[in-house]
Amino acid sequence: MKNSIKIFSPATVANVACGYDVLGFCIDSIGDEMCVFKTEEKGIRITKIEGCELPYSAEENVTGVSALAMYNALNPDCGFNIEIYKKIKPGSGIGSSAASAVGSVFAMNELLGQPYSKIDLLGFALKGEAIASKSEHADNVAPALFGGFTLVKSISPLQILEIPTPTDLYVTIIHPQIEIKTSESRAILPDNVPLEKAIQQWANVGSLIHALHTSDYDLIKESLTDHIIEPYRSQLIPHFNEVKSEVLRSGALGCSISGSGPSIFALSKGKETALMVESAMRQVYINTKIDFQTYVSKINTEGVKIIK
Amino acid sequence: MKNSIKIFSPATVANVACGYDVLGFCIDSIGDEMCVFKTEEKGIRITKIEGCELPYSAEENVTGVSALAMYNALNPDCGFNIEIYKKIKPGSGIGSSAASAVGSVFAMNELLGQPYSKIDLLGFALKGEAIASKSEHADNVAPALFGGFTLVKSISPLQILEIPTPTDLYVTIIHPQIEIKTSESRAILPDNVPLEKAIQQWANVGSLIHALHTSDYDLIKESLTDHIIEPYRSQLIPHFNEVKSEVLRSGALGCSISGSGPSIFALSKGKETALMVESAMRQVYINTKIDFQTYVSKINTEGVKIIK
Repeated sequence: MKNSIKIFSPATVANVACGYDVLGFCIDSIGDEMCVFKTEEKGIRITKIEGCELPYSAEENVTGVSALAMYNALNPDCGFNIEIYKKIKPGSGIGSSAASAVGSVFAMNELLGQPYSKIDLLGFALKGEAIASKSEHADNVAPALFGGFTLVKSISPLQILEIPTPTDLYVTIIHPQIEIKTSESRAILPDNVPLEKAIQQWANVGSLIHALHTSDYDLIKESLTDHIIEPYRSQLIPHFNEVKSEVLRSGALGCSISGSGPSIFALSKGKETALMVESAMRQVYINTKIDFQTYVSKINTEGVKIIK
Repeated sequence: MKNSIKIFSPATVANVACGYDVLGFCIDSIGDEMCVFKTEEKGIRITKIEGCELPYSAEENVTGVSALAMYNALNPDCGFNIEIYKKIKPGSGIGSSAASAVGSVFAMNELLGQPYSKIDLLGFALKGEAIASKSEHADNVAPALFGGFTLVKSISPLQILEIPTPTDLYVTIIHPQIEIKTSESRAILPDNVPLEKAIQQWANVGSLIHALHTSDYDLIKESLTDHIIEPYRSQLIPHFNEVKSEVLRSGALGCSISGSGPSIFALSKGKETALMVESAMRQVYINTKIDFQTYVSKINTEGVKIIK
């Protein structure tokens, strides 16, 4: 059995327009890397962090908290040193904390000979996600672990559905480098929503699931509408409406906020369209004073993976 | 081409627990029958009505209104006499008006050599449904026409998704013969719903669609929960909670209100369980002073059909 491992823990898009709090999918072109080493000395130690200022204390670090949850449950006769190469910026809205939470438990599980299933690992990863987002929500953690599209059927008991991914589906993401406070993006949402809009939303969730099962790209397009959350949260993202309209004009199937933002995602059929969508996004932001990054990726159907 | 036809226009269950206003499925063991005759004399005439007191004037009769919508659109060089053998009681909550609306247009379309597709027929049938229910809603009309499970993605434009039906799925229905006014069953619903409950509901709609695609009976069971509508409307149905708990104890996958009630439906895996569920339902109502009828049926995947 190996004593060290290097893994890739992918970025993810939660909510996916209509599926607030339940849907998510996994990205291939950006993710954190971690090297995890089995040690004789017991315990969990974070020995290196690159790419971001994060606490080294395992108890205060998302990666450490999920690692400790698993470590304390299993109580193995060894310990682990973790090196974190953070590529996903915290607060970007593309599952930075989920990637941190998932990476350590996946790597440790591999080094220990897979004592746990992915759904077990999800339970541990949620403990890490919870210290970042103040609640156990699985809509980023699930796709980071399982890959593809996932539906969080319930948190308690933990129940994740893996939805088929059409082969020609690509995502384009723009991350405008502004800060949106999680507290603000939550506070802006209403406690109650009109029944009429909720009905449209569950029709869209149902039809998106059907569209993914049947690889019906037209129907994916028609389902990627959010009547509930986007009208509120898009107010916190400068130029959102302009990006969305340019992106749809460029042929994207749909466009909405990634997680709680500020990143904006668009789904497209085929890489060529996804690249045109990237140009359209850049064109809007290039004229502003806001720094940004863009990513184009096939949907990652594998999830977190060993790279060495 | 035939000059007369006899058709079976099935009963249907709308809402299906989690899918208020969008989901429905089709029943095999109860439905209306109609005989439709092509005549040289132009126009639509209802020449016989058995089983129910309904107006003979085509303009005031659900069957006649949908027939006229199609007739006026096509303006064929003939007319039609329609005999209605009404088996589904109006106000039962199992799609009586939808069966009436669908039967005539299906039969006429067959007699004319199928000038229209099923989605075209749906548009005409909605005109009939609208005079019964005061609004164009398709969650009964769609499964009556297409069979199986349907999701009404949108009414305008009309977009119906046909969802796969697992082969071993049965429905049991009890129709307690009480009257619930449509106005009352609408008025009791709130205009706004808590976002938290709406999220649970769209998770359930998504997971039910996934479960139907994958024939996952356990997941069907876990998805058949209505957090939004049932708590209100069940108050109008005597002994609802007792029926539901007995039915679930008998092994049903789920149980909720059919349409706006008063009928209650339960889905089961296999006919044997569906029959035990029927006994359980009867056992609750047999001790009351309320008349009732029960039905057990495989899910009808064909929809409205020619029987002669």
